[in-house]
Amino acid sequence: MCRWLAYSGSPLLLEDLLYKPEHSLIDQSLHAKLGVETTNGDGFGVAWYGEEAIPAVYKCVDPAWNDRNLRELSRHIRSRLIFAHIRASTGTPVQQSNCHPFRKGRWLWMHNGQIAQFHDIKRELALAIHPSLYGDLEGSTDTETFFFLALTLGLEENPPEAVERAVGLIETVARAHGIEEPVRMSVAVSDGENIWAFRYASKNVPPSLYYSTTVETLREMHPDVSIFQTLSPESRLVVSEPLGSRVGAWNEVPSSHYGVIREGADKLKIFTPRH
Amino acid sequence: MCRWLAYSGSPLLLEDLLYKPEHSLIDQSLHAKLGVETTNGDGFGVAWYGEEAIPAVYKCVDPAWNDRNLRELSRHIRSRLIFAHIRASTGTPVQQSNCHPFRKGRWLWMHNGQIAQFHDIKRELALAIHPSLYGDLEGSTDTETFFFLALTLGLEENPPEAVERAVGLIETVARAHGIEEPVRMSVAVSDGENIWAFRYASKNVPPSLYYSTTVETLREMHPDVSIFQTLSPESRLVVSEPLGSRVGAWNEVPSSHYGVIREGADKLKIFTPRH
Amino acid sequence: MCRWLAYSGSPLLLEDLLYKPEHSLIDQSLHAKLGVETTNGDGFGVAWYGEEAIPAVYKCVDPAWNDRNLRELSRHIRSRLIFAHIRASTGTPVQQSNCHPFRKGRWLWMHNGQIAQFHDIKRELALAIHPSLYGDLEGSTDTETFFFLALTLGLEENPPEAVERAVGLIETVARAHGIEEPVRMSVAVSDGENIWAFRYASKNVPPSLYYSTTVETLREMHPDVSIFQTLSPESRLVVSEPLGSRVGAWNEVPSSHYGVIREGADKLKIFTPRH
Amino acid sequence: MCRWLAYSGSPLLLEDLLYKPEHSLIDQSLHAKLGVETTNGDGFGVAWYGEEAIPAVYKCVDPAWNDRNLRELSRHIRSRLIFAHIRASTGTPVQQSNCHPFRKGRWLWMHNGQIAQFHDIKRELALAIHPSLYGDLEGSTDTETFFFLALTLGLEENPPEAVERAVGLIETVARAHGIEEPVRMSVAVSDGENIWAFRYASKNVPPSLYYSTTVETLREMHPDVSIFQTLSPESRLVVSEPLGSRVGAWNEVPSSHYGVIREGADKLKIFTPRH
Repeated sequence: MCRWLAYSGSPLLLEDLLYKPEHSLIDQSLHAKLGVETTNGDGFGVAWYGEEAIPAVYKCVDPAWNDRNLRELSRHIRSRLIFAHIRASTGTPVQQSNCHPFRKGRWLWMHNGQIAQFHDIKRELALAIHPSLYGDLEGSTDTETFFFLALTLGLEENPPEAVERAVGLIETVARAHGIEEPVRMSVAVSDGENIWAFRYASKNVPPSLYYSTTVETLREMHPDVSIFQTLSPESRLVVSEPLGSRVGAWNEVPSSHYGVIREGADKLKIFTPRH
Repeated sequence: MCRWLAYSGSPLLLEDLLYKPEHSLIDQSLHAKLGVETTNGDGFGVAWYGEEAIPAVYKCVDPAWNDRNLRELSRHIRSRLIFAHIRASTGTPVQQSNCHPFRKGRWLWMHNGQIAQFHDIKRELALAIHPSLYGDLEGSTDTETFFFLALTLGLEENPPEAVERAVGLIETVARAHGIEEPVRMSVAVSDGENIWAFRYASKNVPPSLYYSTTVETLREMHPDVSIFQTLSPESRLVVSEPLGSRVGAWNEVPSSHYGVIREGADKLKIFTPRH
Repeated sequence: MCRWLAYSGSPLLLEDLLYKPEHSLIDQSLHAKLGVETTNGDGFGVAWYGEEAIPAVYKCVDPAWNDRNLRELSRHIRSRLIFAHIRASTGTPVQQSNCHPFRKGRWLWMHNGQIAQFHDIKRELALAIHPSLYGDLEGSTDTETFFFLALTLGLEENPPEAVERAVGLIETVARAHGIEEPVRMSVAVSDGENIWAFRYASKNVPPSLYYSTTVETLREMHPDVSIFQTLSPESRLVVSEPLGSRVGAWNEVPSSHYGVIREGADKLKIFTPRH
Repeated sequence: MCRWLAYSGSPLLLEDLLYKPEHSLIDQSLHAKLGVETTNGDGFGVAWYGEEAIPAVYKCVDPAWNDRNLRELSRHIRSRLIFAHIRASTGTPVQQSNCHPFRKGRWLWMHNGQIAQFHDIKRELALAIHPSLYGDLEGSTDTETFFFLALTLGLEENPPEAVERAVGLIETVARAHGIEEPVRMSVAVSDGENIWAFRYASKNVPPSLYYSTTVETLREMHPDVSIFQTLSPESRLVVSEPLGSRVGAWNEVPSSHYGVIREGADKLKIFTPRH
């Protein structure tokens, strides 16, 4: 399993997100509380949108906690929309091409969870990827295939529908192979303007997923936290697990739901795979 | 392009093969003479057969010339059948899963050359891989796909025929896409007992490939070279380029030929793709 | 803090030591029980004696648990005397030159613990290293300096006395700087024939250290464990923490003691720094 | 030997400096023309000044030509003062702590060349480093020691004098050891406002060093080069070797000279070691 965070709002230094919070993502790389494993040391990735439509992606196979370059970059890179992911491999190799976030044009994709028995259904899923995309596969993770399926099924036009179709397709293929719980997922997607965050499991409880409450609420509850005072009212975080223990700062995304974060119109909607 | 060597014979320290010769593979990693690029610094791999049927494989993404572990291991590992490969990427990522040699059970495979416009025909070639093998693809190179096609087409029963079939299939697919020179290759294969070494190009000149003359000849011509004195008469090397400049020590494998190295019966035969 | 093991006895595959035990060193890299940190993911090293007097050393900056080369090598390398170490950095960079074991000629050295406020007394300690050795310092750890001090103070003639002198020197320098607990250590040293294992702290409790009971005892108590049946009576393990939970298999090295493992004459002696 | 470039002027994307020129630093990593080795593949480093006084430093042990992160960052990071360095090790390990540029507070330092027989005089030079700095040594290169000597001798007050003193000290120590050509160097230093670039050899010819002619001249001579049209008149480059073959674009720094690049007042002065 893995841990991730997605941020949208007032431009922030990566450092403020990745290192400064009490239970930051870097802290989670050694001491995750809500995942299957406490250690997420099999590589990491950070992506951010800058002046260009296409976001920057920095990936590394070292554990995030001891990567000096990440610390350096974090003190100098500021962005209004940031994705960060720390990996705990479920078997596929630790290589940059298996690190999240994945990117296609201006789209980013990252994932915590897994497609069960992916090895057995990898070929069938890969065949469902649009032929024009297939050649761009570089790694061997279930997440990259999942992303390419969503792209094939219309991610760039209608992200929620495309993800619902991709999950539907994976479930159909998996069940034909007798796999009972095909999908456990918390997925984040962005086009540089919006963030979509999905939480779902074919059966039982999906991976944990939280979003920050409104900045106004946070400010009132925690007048002592300086960073909350300077963020714009629209600033939001979606995270695998809360970055601290403050009461009221975090809401759980319910199972089989997805959230949309965009200026002036956050929403929480029901997620239903389309078979 | 890349450089490689394959050795069969009296057990040798890796060091004797990789570091000691005048124009050793390590020297070739910085100063290759017969390849397209002089530098082969995009990772490397070494494999050797020991007590077990399944060979050991050591792969690394660093340049071979500055890898201290390779130097350490080379002083301590001795084997009667050794493969070594230094990589110059033609575009795919520098990651261990893209380093040669590739292994399946007791079989090893390494390659210098390329499948032209591989990106465009990757999907069609991947579909021709046996479904039971597809899930084991870990990297993104043309070489891994080529190996899996050869396995699909009977490598473990009849290596020369399987390689001829794989090349035939690649050429057929490529030409349907208007690719004029689909294959340039020098390939080495082993099962732990035999080495097969192939040299072929669909058109024009294939990558360079040489094999050592008989140890008896070498001994007479070079009484000063101590290593030649202790090797058994059956010991043989196949290399991308000669490891030194001694007259008479190396023979070129002719284009569209393959050699078989095995006890008591080396052979040179014609290679013809089967379409 | 770190975890390590040292083995002497019947030649064993590295795999049997590093991967197969219930709470193996690889398991400890993710789930250490007796150290300050549960994760030891800041690089690792393995060294073994073979045909030559000088041992081989393989070091890597990745976490041990996801290093495929270590797994490969472990299945093929067999030795009668093995050192292995997994690192949890206390601040110095994660680089091969900071990984243990350290080597000088036929001598190996590895360490769990730390010299307190090393940064502040590094220069003074370095000046005490013999000038002919100083130029060989390659990394920045307290352990490398400690090793070089022991070499300076006669490690190659009388290891216990040299370590007692080195600790005495470190304590003297540290206390002059007002450092209260200069040394916490469990150190292993070998010359290829003997293993010396030291456990000491200037104050309070030193890092944990255990040695295996006699093979005969182990065999009687655990007739079901196949590996115990084939080892010679002299085979011994010294470890940071037991490799399993079997009653009677492990003895704690008392604080301020060191053990000597050699053919026919294991001993446990008192360790007293010499100031 | 190594290759480097230093830039000061209108904010530029790293990409424009590192990748776009005809004979860019990345091209030089594979095909250097004026150095001892054509390949500079033993790690690299880039540093740039941003909003903060302290510059960012990104270092990596891979060859620059195949580092995907460098390519990503280069498309997104823009700076008015940039240092970049590609390394060809002369023996010390390939590790981040041995990559240039080195940093202390807001100061950057990088080097091409070497201190002859550094191993033999390392201790004596290290003893001349101010005790308060000694503990910060992290690597094992001559360059880091050279930098720390310059800091000890007043780099932050008067850079040219401090470098002259440091070279004087190195020459004195070296000659006492019978070393005939102690120093060959091209060094760049910056405090975020000025760049000082030194070219010197104790004997014979120092490493190559060039600076760009005025932007006005460049514009007149090369109306076709778009990047020249948008840079401010003050923009300057100092490089190990010219980034292209245009006549008139580059001037050689004479031996035993140093240049100062700062707003409104570039200068070329004589460099004389102070013993």
